[in-house]
Amino acid sequence: MSHGPSTTRTEAFSDGVFAIAITLLILDIKVPPLPVPEAAATTHWLLDQLTREWTVYLAYLMSFAVILVMWVNHHDIFTLVERVDRPFLYWNGLLLMLISIVPFPTSLLARYLMKDAAKVGAAVYAGHGLLISLAFRGLWRHAIRDKRLMAPGTEAQVAKRSKQYRFGPLMYLLAFALAFVSAYASAGLCLVFAMFRSEEHTSE
Amino acid sequence: MSHGPSTTRTEAFSDGVFAIAITLLILDIKVPPLPVPEAAATTHWLLDQLTREWTVYLAYLMSFAVILVMWVNHHDIFTLVERVDRPFLYWNGLLLMLISIVPFPTSLLARYLMKDAAKVGAAVYAGHGLLISLAFRGLWRHAIRDKRLMAPGTEAQVAKRSKQYRFGPLMYLLAFALAFVSAYASAGLCLVFAMFRSEEHTSE
Amino acid sequence: MSHGPSTTRTEAFSDGVFAIAITLLILDIKVPPLPVPEAAATTHWLLDQLTREWTVYLAYLMSFAVILVMWVNHHDIFTLVERVDRPFLYWNGLLLMLISIVPFPTSLLARYLMKDAAKVGAAVYAGHGLLISLAFRGLWRHAIRDKRLMAPGTEAQVAKRSKQYRFGPLMYLLAFALAFVSAYASAGLCLVFAMFRSEEHTSE
Amino acid sequence: MSHGPSTTRTEAFSDGVFAIAITLLILDIKVPPLPVPEAAATTHWLLDQLTREWTVYLAYLMSFAVILVMWVNHHDIFTLVERVDRPFLYWNGLLLMLISIVPFPTSLLARYLMKDAAKVGAAVYAGHGLLISLAFRGLWRHAIRDKRLMAPGTEAQVAKRSKQYRFGPLMYLLAFALAFVSAYASAGLCLVFAMFRSEEHTSE
Repeated sequence: MSHGPSTTRTEAFSDGVFAIAITLLILDIKVPPLPVPEAAATTHWLLDQLTREWTVYLAYLMSFAVILVMWVNHHDIFTLVERVDRPFLYWNGLLLMLISIVPFPTSLLARYLMKDAAKVGAAVYAGHGLLISLAFRGLWRHAIRDKRLMAPGTEAQVAKRSKQYRFGPLMYLLAFALAFVSAYASAGLCLVFAMFRSEEHTSE
Repeated sequence: MSHGPSTTRTEAFSDGVFAIAITLLILDIKVPPLPVPEAAATTHWLLDQLTREWTVYLAYLMSFAVILVMWVNHHDIFTLVERVDRPFLYWNGLLLMLISIVPFPTSLLARYLMKDAAKVGAAVYAGHGLLISLAFRGLWRHAIRDKRLMAPGTEAQVAKRSKQYRFGPLMYLLAFALAFVSAYASAGLCLVFAMFRSEEHTSE
Repeated sequence: MSHGPSTTRTEAFSDGVFAIAITLLILDIKVPPLPVPEAAATTHWLLDQLTREWTVYLAYLMSFAVILVMWVNHHDIFTLVERVDRPFLYWNGLLLMLISIVPFPTSLLARYLMKDAAKVGAAVYAGHGLLISLAFRGLWRHAIRDKRLMAPGTEAQVAKRSKQYRFGPLMYLLAFALAFVSAYASAGLCLVFAMFRSEEHTSE
Repeated sequence: MSHGPSTTRTEAFSDGVFAIAITLLILDIKVPPLPVPEAAATTHWLLDQLTREWTVYLAYLMSFAVILVMWVNHHDIFTLVERVDRPFLYWNGLLLMLISIVPFPTSLLARYLMKDAAKVGAAVYAGHGLLISLAFRGLWRHAIRDKRLMAPGTEAQVAKRSKQYRFGPLMYLLAFALAFVSAYASAGLCLVFAMFRSEEHTSE
């Protein structure tokens, strides 16, 4: 029981969604079924079966890393937020929805990266990144607009973080536009940006 | 360890179920498999594959929104409840069961909305909404019947909320009856009612 | 961080497993796929598709109810337990494994109940119930053997509960033996016993 | 809300991933579908269907036991750690990724153990074990390098545990090398080592 709104249950619910989204990723990775006849299951055959799935493994690693970085990011926001109100809960819900969707654009990108349709995958991937950065920004702006939601004595950290949230949507908008020119350039920009952000986090 | 019954574990268990139910929804959204031959994976083909799945995306959005609104609702109840007893746990369990079922009536409605069988989908959807509103009401009535379960000083909020719970089952009963006349009218009424409720929550 | 062993994380981990096991059940319930040709999706056809799946729905309800009762039971134990040690963690892990398996014996029973192989399903179902009651008993006996694990002032409740745990394994052993004679009698006994237990809990 | 980094949310997120990874295992165990014609579902047929899946059951038991032992291990580390920083969160994330992958190498090993490709399965299994032991060691070394992360008064336990983490990677490296000679010897070594570790934990 909690008198008045608190962040405890919101964090618990969010952690649940993050944990499930990141763990469900493994369902996309299947052990190769036994061949017919079973005697054909030679070392060479199995190695071949495993290595040809490399885009699936790559998509898995990318999705896992992206969700983990977002969890760290989400965790950071909640070290500054002290109280939640209802719009905050809905912003957070929108963010969680976009996070639970992560495997879809990632798999789409990986599966079609070397096909004719690569640009569709890159556009969906960058577009999804754009939506996530907008949702993070919306959550953040709602939180800081109303002083009552923030923990006291966090002004300096708030200012620094606000600057970061201004940057994200622009980068993903650029990557989205790039997708119509080159799928590789667009995906590369998203990757560089993701690495840059986790780097920035680590060095904080 | 908790001396005597507390709401902590009930909230944790419930949050788990909500978080899993809302995250499992994504399993219904599949990346289109590569065509045979793979050279047929053109931009046009992939866009066509993605857009024809629009009822699946719609069902996903509806299920996610409905579960999120219910989580907020559930969260609200627990800000007023201080203690749980065993019937409360079973009422809560019934509610969680109905919530974890949400994807079924939603997908049924979306998949058959433009087929001859649309009325079956609409009736199942409204019927499920009716059961959920009854379970919420049952949980609520059990909680307020016994003063010991409620947090002190919450009488005004309790009275306001009780009025809302009287309204819900009637609306869904109407939508259920409407399904036998028109699937669209029934689904529309459910949608309007869901929007109205989240609106009401937001403006509280 | 927790200095020395506490029950907090064990409860959180257990709640996670319970919540996931109970929510995954829904994955067994599928919306009927559109027929070919789609015009065949009449009201009559869809109602027929839905009703013929009644054993699946029944298995779902049974599994959900059984896991919920066990969660309440597990929750009860932890109101009396104050500290955990390593064997306790492994007993708890064994119990969680058996609980996450629940959908398997339940579906097996439901799917083959009206086939020639019904006795196999009933024996597996009762055998699984026997294992669960033994795991609950093992966890309980380990907890009470060492006074340090129990919360002080709980002697009366401990004695009452110990009596219950003596009863469970015997009932399931009887149901297991009965399965070789009659699948229906065995399944019926399990059902009666489950209802009796939740009844007993409710009236406490 | 938590002022400054704490371990609470990290533990909650980790428990979520552990709980989901260990519960998802059951999705690999399927109830045998009804035969065509259904009259062929005799007792003998069903027993045969169930018993031929023994490698699946074995993989399930192994995966469950391994994840449970790791959860206990993870739980132990957090009784000594008082604070987290960002590199700690990423080490923990890497560990959780490897844990959520557990079903893959385990199923691969079980499915191909008696086929020509057994060595591939054994090498992947031991290699995955090696990565997990390295991730545990990395997490641990990062935690103890910086005194601020550790709870005060835990020096003796820290020293004892550090010795264990030196041992693990060497064993799995040996098992990995052995896989190229004999799949059985490699898998056996992994099994012996896993039993030895849980034994060591229990007797602590």
